[in-house]
Amino acid sequence: MTSANQAEVVTELTQLAQRYEQALGENDLDTLDALFWDSPDVVRFGATENLYGIDAIREFRQQRPTKNLARTVSNFKVVTFGAESGAVTLEFCRWVDGEPRYGRQSQMWYKFPEGWRIVSAHVSWLG
Amino acid sequence: MTSANQAEVVTELTQLAQRYEQALGENDLDTLDALFWDSPDVVRFGATENLYGIDAIREFRQQRPTKNLARTVSNFKVVTFGAESGAVTLEFCRWVDGEPRYGRQSQMWYKFPEGWRIVSAHVSWLG
Repeated sequence: MTSANQAEVVTELTQLAQRYEQALGENDLDTLDALFWDSPDVVRFGATENLYGIDAIREFRQQRPTKNLARTVSNFKVVTFGAESGAVTLEFCRWVDGEPRYGRQSQMWYKFPEGWRIVSAHVSWLG
Repeated sequence: MTSANQAEVVTELTQLAQRYEQALGENDLDTLDALFWDSPDVVRFGATENLYGIDAIREFRQQRPTKNLARTVSNFKVVTFGAESGAVTLEFCRWVDGEPRYGRQSQMWYKFPEGWRIVSAHVSWLG
């Protein structure tokens, strides 16, 4: 018996994860930024970069191309633990030079007094 | 003010993450298995596979090659939240066909009544 997947926690985190995905497609940097933990200890492994700390993540986002951000998401999954932590995972397909390319994204979220934040994220192409 | 990185929690999780890394190098399947959450909701994105549920993860491990498992780890990082959750990230280098290849690993751990378990993991090559 664990406290995993309490319905109201799953609902709460699912809404935030969907908001993040929408912001990603719209390149809404303010929302993306607000949903990441404002800390030097936050980590984001992207497809082609390893970023440590919120400053590095913000700088990367500023320089990110703003075209062709669309991706098709599958197997979107939210698993929560207690009332304050959760794992969000998904697979995606993005068209690169006319070919489908498959990737995965995983995020660890934690609920601070100020709200849920992504504390660790990893995006990669399927090798 | 958050409850991140309480010293005793970081110490506890660091020891477990190091035990996991050692078991990986020795292909100690029992230890690897024992440190993953025994649940259909556990997720492991590997370099070349997306695995959902403990059964899929166990099956993958059984079929994994047992040679050339050595990897050099850098930027090993443990960040904890409260007393029950933590993010473990690292970068690694593995020699493939005489060439260095760089990868990243991130794990979300949660402390259940029976102990700390990996509830979500993601391993990938740097694209």
